[in-house]
Amino acid sequence: MTDARDAGDGARRRTNMREVAELAEVAISSVSRVLSGHPDVSQDMRDRVLDAVAQLEYEPDFLAQSLRRGQTLSVGFVLADISNPLMAEIVLGAEAELRGAGYSLLLMNSENDPALDATHVRFFQGRRVDGMILSLVSESDPRTIGTLRAVDVPLVVVDRRLDPDVRASSVRNDHAAGMAEAVRHLLELGHRRVALITGALDTFPGRERMEAMKRVIAATRGQVEGRYLPGSFSADHGDAATRELVGSSNPPTAIVCGGNQLLIGCLRVIQERGLEVGRDISLVTCDDVALSALYRPPIASISRDTVALGRTAAELLLKRLAGSAELEDVVLPTTYTPRASAAPPPAG
Amino acid sequence: MTDARDAGDGARRRTNMREVAELAEVAISSVSRVLSGHPDVSQDMRDRVLDAVAQLEYEPDFLAQSLRRGQTLSVGFVLADISNPLMAEIVLGAEAELRGAGYSLLLMNSENDPALDATHVRFFQGRRVDGMILSLVSESDPRTIGTLRAVDVPLVVVDRRLDPDVRASSVRNDHAAGMAEAVRHLLELGHRRVALITGALDTFPGRERMEAMKRVIAATRGQVEGRYLPGSFSADHGDAATRELVGSSNPPTAIVCGGNQLLIGCLRVIQERGLEVGRDISLVTCDDVALSALYRPPIASISRDTVALGRTAAELLLKRLAGSAELEDVVLPTTYTPRASAAPPPAG
Repeated sequence: MTDARDAGDGARRRTNMREVAELAEVAISSVSRVLSGHPDVSQDMRDRVLDAVAQLEYEPDFLAQSLRRGQTLSVGFVLADISNPLMAEIVLGAEAELRGAGYSLLLMNSENDPALDATHVRFFQGRRVDGMILSLVSESDPRTIGTLRAVDVPLVVVDRRLDPDVRASSVRNDHAAGMAEAVRHLLELGHRRVALITGALDTFPGRERMEAMKRVIAATRGQVEGRYLPGSFSADHGDAATRELVGSSNPPTAIVCGGNQLLIGCLRVIQERGLEVGRDISLVTCDDVALSALYRPPIASISRDTVALGRTAAELLLKRLAGSAELEDVVLPTTYTPRASAAPPPAG
Repeated sequence: MTDARDAGDGARRRTNMREVAELAEVAISSVSRVLSGHPDVSQDMRDRVLDAVAQLEYEPDFLAQSLRRGQTLSVGFVLADISNPLMAEIVLGAEAELRGAGYSLLLMNSENDPALDATHVRFFQGRRVDGMILSLVSESDPRTIGTLRAVDVPLVVVDRRLDPDVRASSVRNDHAAGMAEAVRHLLELGHRRVALITGALDTFPGRERMEAMKRVIAATRGQVEGRYLPGSFSADHGDAATRELVGSSNPPTAIVCGGNQLLIGCLRVIQERGLEVGRDISLVTCDDVALSALYRPPIASISRDTVALGRTAAELLLKRLAGSAELEDVVLPTTYTPRASAAPPPAG
C-alpha cells in the first residue's frame, strides 16, 4: 500500500536504523551489531555503517540503550476501537516511527469497552513491553486509572487527558479551535438551530468539541439554539441521535457529527428520511474520511493530521525510552474545511 | 459491552464462563473452581455449575487445557492492513470468540508490506503466543513461507491459500460465486466492455475474483471484452487504474472494484472527471462498507460476513488449541447485492 508507506517515509523526521542500513548497503541486523559493539563485525562493515551514521546524523541511543537494559524492544498500543479508521492512521504513524527505532508495535483492541482498557494495560505490563501508547475508551474509568498508576514503563496518552497521578506524556488535538470555526461558519450561513451529536464525554475530544460549540453559541446571547446529544462514538448513536433530532418539533437546520462513526448513522437516517444534505439540512463532520470527502455533496469537516498524531506519540515515547524523565504535553492543530454540505438553511 | 463493564475486570471471563456463572447464579471464580476440579467445592455448587454448563453447552476444555500446559493464553493476529475496514471486522469476530475462551488477542499490522508478515510471525513466535491467525499481505513470499514452516504453534489462515507444507487450518470466502453473479448481472444489463480493478494476485481473493470474471467473459465467446488491472489493494491503485480505464480510447462501460480501498481511488477519479455513477458508468464493488452503502447512488456490492470470517478463524484455532491435530478448510459464502450503481450502459 503505497499510501501508508509514503505516510511513513514522509513522516519520519529522525533518521532511523533502516535508512542507515540502506545507505550503508547492509542488513539492519548488521547496523545493530555494529552499534551494539558486537565483536563479530568486519572492519569494512563497521566503516560503512559508521559512515552512514555520520552522514545521516543518526542517533542510535534509543536502541542501544534498550538492548543494554535487556528490554523487549516492544511497545503496546491500546486502541479504543479498531473499527475507527482514524485509529488505523494513528497506528500507522506510530508504527513507522517506532519501527525506525527498532521497536515492534503490539496492538490490543478495546472494542469501545472501558473494561478492556485496564485488562489490556495489565496484559501488556505482564508481557513486559518497554512502553505503552494509550488511546483509551474512557479517561476516567477507575479500573484503568488504578491500573495505570501502578504501571512502571513509560506511557504516552493519545488525545486523552488522564488523572495527573498517572505519569504519562500526551499528545492531543486542539479540537476546540476547529469546532469554533465550524460553528461560526454555520451561524454566518444563517443557521439559528444547531445540534451536536457527539461521543463519550469522558474522552478529551468528546468534551472539548461540545464545550467549544457551547461557547460560540453562548456568545450569541440567546440568538442561537444549541442542542447536544452525547453518547458513544458509534454509528448506532449517530443513527439514534439523528432520528431524535429530525423527528423533533423544531428540528435543527444544521447538525455537527463529532466523529466519523457517528456520521455513518447520521447519513443513514438522513437518506431514509429523503433529506438532501446541503439543501434541507446542513452537515459538518469531525475527522475527514473517505465517506466525508467522497459523499455527494462532499461534507464539511473539522480535520487533523492523524498520522502526525501517532508519529508524535511515538516520538514522545522514544524520548522516555531513551531515558528522559520529563513528561510532555503536545497539542496539534485541527482545521475546518467548508464544503457544500454546509449551506444556508432552507428559507422560511 | 455493558455486560463487560459490570463484570469488572475480566475480559477473559466475559463470554462463555460468565454466562455459565450467571445461569448458575454463582461467582465466575466458582465456575472456574468447579471446572478445574478444585476440591473445595460444595456438591450444590458443583451441580448448579454443571447444570448450567450442560444447558449452555459450554465447553470448558480450551481454557483448562491451556492452563495445564502452562501456555500464555494469548493469540497473535497478523493483519495485512489495519486501514482496511474489513480487517477490523475480522478482528472483532475473532476477538469475541477468543476472549470467550479465555485468550487475549495481540495484533500486529503488516502495512501491506510482505516483508513485515514474516517479521511479525517471528515476533509472535518469540513471545510464545499459543497460536496465530494470519491475514497475510502475500501468500507466496518465501520469507513468510520459510518462517511459517518452522512455527510450532497452531496456525489459522484467513482468506489465503498457503503452500501445503505450512500446516494451517484455513477459512476463506467463495469469492468466485459472488463475482460470477455480479458480472452476469452487468452482462444482462447490456455491458459489453467490463473491467476489473483488483489487488495483489498472490492473495486468494485477488486471484479468485479475477479468474471468476474471466470465466464468465470467456463463456460469451468474444461478445464481451474484459480488462484486468491487478495491483495492490490500495486507494492509489484504484485511482491509477481508473484513470487508465476512463482515459483509454474505448473505455469500459462498467468497472468492478475488487476491494474497498480500491473503490476510494476509483470514486475519486470518477468524480474528478464529472462522470455520474449508474448513468455514465456502472460500478460494482467487493465488500460492503459505509462508503458503498451510503454513496449516492448506492454501489452494488459483492459482500460477505467478515465478522463470521474472524469468528470461524478463532473457532478453528480453538479446536487446534484444544488438541485437535486435524487441519480444516472452511469456505464461507459471498453475496451479490445489485444496486443503482449497476445500470444499463449509456445508449450508443
